[in-house]
Amino acid sequence: MAKIVMKFGGAALASSEQIQEAARKAIAEKDKGLDVVVVVAAMGHTAKEMKMMVHQLTDDVSKRELDAVLSTGSQLSSALFAIALQEAGYEAVSLTGWQAGIHTDGMYRQARIDYIDISRMEEHFAQGQIVVIAGEQGIDEVHNITTLGKGGAETTAVALAIALEAERVDMYTNVDGVYTADPRYVPNAQKLQEISYDEMLELSNLGSHIIHPRAVELAKKFQMPVIIRSSLIESVGTLLKEEVEMEKNLVVRGVAFESDIIRLTVGYDAFSNASLADIFTVLAENRINVDIIVQAIIDGLKPTVSFSILKEEFAEALRVLEDSKLSLGFSFADFEIGLAKVSIIGSGMASNPGVAARMFDRLRRENIPVKMVSTSEIKVSVVVPQDDMIQAANALHDEFNLEQALYI
Amino acid sequence: MAKIVMKFGGAALASSEQIQEAARKAIAEKDKGLDVVVVVAAMGHTAKEMKMMVHQLTDDVSKRELDAVLSTGSQLSSALFAIALQEAGYEAVSLTGWQAGIHTDGMYRQARIDYIDISRMEEHFAQGQIVVIAGEQGIDEVHNITTLGKGGAETTAVALAIALEAERVDMYTNVDGVYTADPRYVPNAQKLQEISYDEMLELSNLGSHIIHPRAVELAKKFQMPVIIRSSLIESVGTLLKEEVEMEKNLVVRGVAFESDIIRLTVGYDAFSNASLADIFTVLAENRINVDIIVQAIIDGLKPTVSFSILKEEFAEALRVLEDSKLSLGFSFADFEIGLAKVSIIGSGMASNPGVAARMFDRLRRENIPVKMVSTSEIKVSVVVPQDDMIQAANALHDEFNLEQALYI
Repeated sequence: MAKIVMKFGGAALASSEQIQEAARKAIAEKDKGLDVVVVVAAMGHTAKEMKMMVHQLTDDVSKRELDAVLSTGSQLSSALFAIALQEAGYEAVSLTGWQAGIHTDGMYRQARIDYIDISRMEEHFAQGQIVVIAGEQGIDEVHNITTLGKGGAETTAVALAIALEAERVDMYTNVDGVYTADPRYVPNAQKLQEISYDEMLELSNLGSHIIHPRAVELAKKFQMPVIIRSSLIESVGTLLKEEVEMEKNLVVRGVAFESDIIRLTVGYDAFSNASLADIFTVLAENRINVDIIVQAIIDGLKPTVSFSILKEEFAEALRVLEDSKLSLGFSFADFEIGLAKVSIIGSGMASNPGVAARMFDRLRRENIPVKMVSTSEIKVSVVVPQDDMIQAANALHDEFNLEQALYI
Repeated sequence: MAKIVMKFGGAALASSEQIQEAARKAIAEKDKGLDVVVVVAAMGHTAKEMKMMVHQLTDDVSKRELDAVLSTGSQLSSALFAIALQEAGYEAVSLTGWQAGIHTDGMYRQARIDYIDISRMEEHFAQGQIVVIAGEQGIDEVHNITTLGKGGAETTAVALAIALEAERVDMYTNVDGVYTADPRYVPNAQKLQEISYDEMLELSNLGSHIIHPRAVELAKKFQMPVIIRSSLIESVGTLLKEEVEMEKNLVVRGVAFESDIIRLTVGYDAFSNASLADIFTVLAENRINVDIIVQAIIDGLKPTVSFSILKEEFAEALRVLEDSKLSLGFSFADFEIGLAKVSIIGSGMASNPGVAARMFDRLRRENIPVKMVSTSEIKVSVVVPQDDMIQAANALHDEFNLEQALYI
């Protein structure tokens, strides 16, 4: 039988009424004759409340125990969701990560899925049951409970869809689809009917918090169709797939932006070809996400490298750099806070030279200083002062005529 | 290395401060060179809050899903407890029921432990870790999460102690030991230094809510020493063991009482020797605990049987009787609410005739009507009007000179 995976985040499950509403959506799919898997995150602010309880006990929690704490959140919501389905007259069963056969590596707080044993889920399908799975969690090789960290529930949903050979994943979010820019800040933003994995990946990586890039990457790798739709209203949503038909003259497909960026700069005591790799290796080992990297080697000055990170990883990044500065031969130089990143994205960009130049020119005319630049085949990102972020986003949305992106 | 199992209930874990205080008690035992297992219930009112969440979704929850909900409570508190131990500088690890190797039957809400695989716990001991276990839960043969129901955390603690061949179990409660009667209602009550399993079993069955009879039964079966002590103050507590030295002339060791008893009476349409067994078989199959049973066969009248149950099982008992009255050939006759049970307990009772007579005589002099009577080798219970319960308890405490029970 054809299968569908549906994912609901914490904001869509904050109350009994919301759980019942989400359950109705699952039932609608079941009534179409599909086998339904529901993946749920922890209800509302549960995770935050649990972190506060932990914080009352320690400032330095072991990651294993934090995972043991946090995993109870989605476990609870999965059981409540199953209860709501049963109350509506449908057969349902809740499964924790380990019961669902989700096996991960042992990296607490940000575990990666190794494999999924679908045998138990298949048994429940055979009994006509809707299967509700606690998202964001699994077990490692020695049966410790792990959580998947950011984007965990979405990644779980995509991974399950792949393992179960489902038709698609429906990601229920607080938006009704993917827009050319965040409509809360860019009034002319338009909803897209379809978007390619690559474009969505750039959008996700560039601060659009609709869906986590991990989930998009995984969907792309296995060509799993994903629909971004609203948990609040009925909507067709936006379909993520490999190839998207687009207007030839629309080179740029969207504008993304993200605040709370910090630029860190380190100076080399002695530069070698290995230095650059060493710094980013140690940051990667500590799972600090470095975004834009700019290296400057100017005669007469110490060589420096600047890179941008998220504000929330600032303290940890400083600690890591401090711990390894002697062994790696660099010294901490400078940091700048209060920055934001604004990006333009579009698969057609690679074959259209001059897009970046047009972007910089418009920002110059808007009197917005550009602090860092990063480009890929399908996007250009700039780091600008946070205060200029909204203005920059609207200006670029206008510059590339995105208000004409009539894909709906 | 010698091992100890310590059990903390929800009331002893209601706040961060209480968790830290309980953790200090565990550390004190670890510092004595013992391997320490801590068994915890869900924090404070967690279980009640979760049941309310479930109640908002349904009035008829599936037991499997209710267990999935409730198991998250002790899972959370076990992780928080481990975090408190780590913060104090001790190695600790939290384990869920299934991680701790606790295998149960598949009877949700009141599962029984089949066996415990101690291999994982032994690994943690070998690493010097204090092991904190989510009480009240396990997994069944097909890996569903089960909870053990009433007395679950205490039963888990005793079962773990037996499996691990621990020295003893320390049950931390809100009282500092076992008294000749509940000192809140019987001012002359005295604390006992020791009490036999059998006496404790009678006390537990007779409404003393210090420790659940399931746990006492299990401890008795494997001769596991148990200390009842206070989570609030330092105290030596009361030791449960097989043989207790007692004053020869103290035939009665304690007075127990319990309110909210209901007497149900059914009448037989046609009586046969099988009838009695049939009724109580069907009640037992539905896990309704029947306490005192009185059967009356009077010439010219329909035979009747009366039995007492707890108020909370009243609705379910009525349902069961209603469902089976046709097949079993009886009709519901009567019930009486607002009753209480008062009991006297003592191992020396069997060899001292006249104890029951002395009890009835005193109650008659106090003008307290006796509705039902039940006796065993070491106790006599009477059912009286609930309004007379405290008076009866104090009178019997006085009658058998328990204020002289100086065992402290």
